[in-house]
Amino acid sequence: MTSSRVRKEVDEALYAFVDRQRPVLLAITEDLEPMLSALDTLLSGGKRLRPAFAYWGWRGAGGVDGPEVFSAAASLELLQASALIHDDVMDGSDTRRGQPSVHRRFEAMHAREGWPGSAESFGTGAAILLGDVTLAWSTEMYEASGLSEAALAPGRPIYDIMRTEVMCGQYLDMLEQARGTGDVESALRVVRYKAAKYTIERPLHLGAAMAGADAAYLESLSAYGLPLGTAFQLRDDVLGVFGDPTETGKPAGDDLREGKRTVLIALAMQSGTPAQRETLNHRLGDPDLDLAGVEELRGILTETGALDGCEKMIDRFAADAHRALAEIELTPEARTALTDLAVAATARRV
Amino acid sequence: MTSSRVRKEVDEALYAFVDRQRPVLLAITEDLEPMLSALDTLLSGGKRLRPAFAYWGWRGAGGVDGPEVFSAAASLELLQASALIHDDVMDGSDTRRGQPSVHRRFEAMHAREGWPGSAESFGTGAAILLGDVTLAWSTEMYEASGLSEAALAPGRPIYDIMRTEVMCGQYLDMLEQARGTGDVESALRVVRYKAAKYTIERPLHLGAAMAGADAAYLESLSAYGLPLGTAFQLRDDVLGVFGDPTETGKPAGDDLREGKRTVLIALAMQSGTPAQRETLNHRLGDPDLDLAGVEELRGILTETGALDGCEKMIDRFAADAHRALAEIELTPEARTALTDLAVAATARRV
Repeated sequence: MTSSRVRKEVDEALYAFVDRQRPVLLAITEDLEPMLSALDTLLSGGKRLRPAFAYWGWRGAGGVDGPEVFSAAASLELLQASALIHDDVMDGSDTRRGQPSVHRRFEAMHAREGWPGSAESFGTGAAILLGDVTLAWSTEMYEASGLSEAALAPGRPIYDIMRTEVMCGQYLDMLEQARGTGDVESALRVVRYKAAKYTIERPLHLGAAMAGADAAYLESLSAYGLPLGTAFQLRDDVLGVFGDPTETGKPAGDDLREGKRTVLIALAMQSGTPAQRETLNHRLGDPDLDLAGVEELRGILTETGALDGCEKMIDRFAADAHRALAEIELTPEARTALTDLAVAATARRV
Repeated sequence: MTSSRVRKEVDEALYAFVDRQRPVLLAITEDLEPMLSALDTLLSGGKRLRPAFAYWGWRGAGGVDGPEVFSAAASLELLQASALIHDDVMDGSDTRRGQPSVHRRFEAMHAREGWPGSAESFGTGAAILLGDVTLAWSTEMYEASGLSEAALAPGRPIYDIMRTEVMCGQYLDMLEQARGTGDVESALRVVRYKAAKYTIERPLHLGAAMAGADAAYLESLSAYGLPLGTAFQLRDDVLGVFGDPTETGKPAGDDLREGKRTVLIALAMQSGTPAQRETLNHRLGDPDLDLAGVEELRGILTETGALDGCEKMIDRFAADAHRALAEIELTPEARTALTDLAVAATARRV
């Protein structure tokens, strides 16, 4: 099973589920069509990372191949869609996956129709609701995946804690941005709950638990998934500042404009001169930051050694993950796939 | 089983579930305590209407009593908490159940701590996330209720459609407010999906389906639940304008300030003079509407006959519900309870 084949099966399961919901919504009224098309657009992008880890967690623990497991795994992509839609509202992001974010899309619809009242409020409301719908659908898709109750039952508590963790992680992220602790440790705690557990550890656990794995086995997966998930998020933070917009789907330096207090920024604050810290504090989160401003901040992140430090952390966490992977009892095919995923999730792309 | 006993059992199941989540969140960090206390405050109010209908749907169809059914039924209260939290964000409501709304609560926390940045954005973000958490927990509570898979399985598709309907109903509500169709028919369509199905029909279906009821039986419940749910929402609309703040938990005339385009308003627009319509259009949704303004609009709603018309609709829908109830095969105890619930949900309180 190649990674492109996994992606294809996940996509098929995902689109089949949404296609079953389409007539349900349109039977209420055709006025719901914009909700469906907004979701279609969002789902047309994305790397399907969480479903891939869930699938390989399943296969690695000896689960047999079949459309049901792809359906259960693909449901994580609806959870992710919900998180992205709500995240973009909270961050006021204009774009997602190279397209207007959902709330901006509905805002534009309101403006286009020339309706009275606030287009922004309409956009926000529609995005909150579409995020709710996709969150509810993720559970529905999991339960209706066709896997036996014997497989679904041990997966449920993992799905449950995973949702709680990612939402609480988002809250902690917001809290850190607000109170501006700004130290590396606080930033890493956010990464742990919002990203490492959510993107890699829990999807692996979900797949393995559905295949009947025990607690000790899940623990061995954590030793791989947590450092890899941390490395993945740090890579994402680097890309958010230094990345190619055609790859990230966001304008250059967008994370700087949003003022995200990432580990990368925390490292710069830790080793910067008073003047550099002052500039960072002053310009981070400026929505009008132009390309020259982005370049200035990139310069500080490079000169302070924060970029190098972050790359070193990525290397270290990725190495930890690879070492732990060697210790896990896995089918050879799953071992190869998880090795490839670890490389792809953390590779330098700048 | 008296209604106060049902309420007590539902509350116990609900608080026991939240108490099991408490250490899960606090193990992540004590910084999550404000999320828990915001939820505690919200859950301390509310009439537990949806759990009551689910419980009596179960008992009416012959389901046996026990803590498990209360747990499954009480999970609807978490879905409702999620809807209220997100609804208040969308409407910009300051209060809920006589307390500050969740987003205002977190906004106040931000201000109190003197953090930099926007207190309003912080409040909105925290409320979106707490609404997500409670939505996820509603599913979790249902699945972990302890009912057998034979009971849970037929309930799932009903829970699924119920969530989709209420969220789509909210979107349609927002759409109607935005484009201002303003006719009675459009307003009634919103009532159907956002309230009638969500508050009464689907909870009844859920309980009955879990107890093994067939499609014909569910249909007989709809004949009672849909008109009753419509009457209930119309009563709520009347209370939102004419109600006693100590009972509604909202300031007098708050629905007018929010500019809600209810059936009551649609009736006034239909039969008002051009001057009255002009005043309604001009003053509805004015956040600074004072008590004199509220009195003026109340006057128009009375003079146009909209209030009387709405009361007549409530009477007619309630009568339809009572007639349909007589046709349903029910245990005597369930019949009495559903009769009482119908009276309580639609009684005049102004």
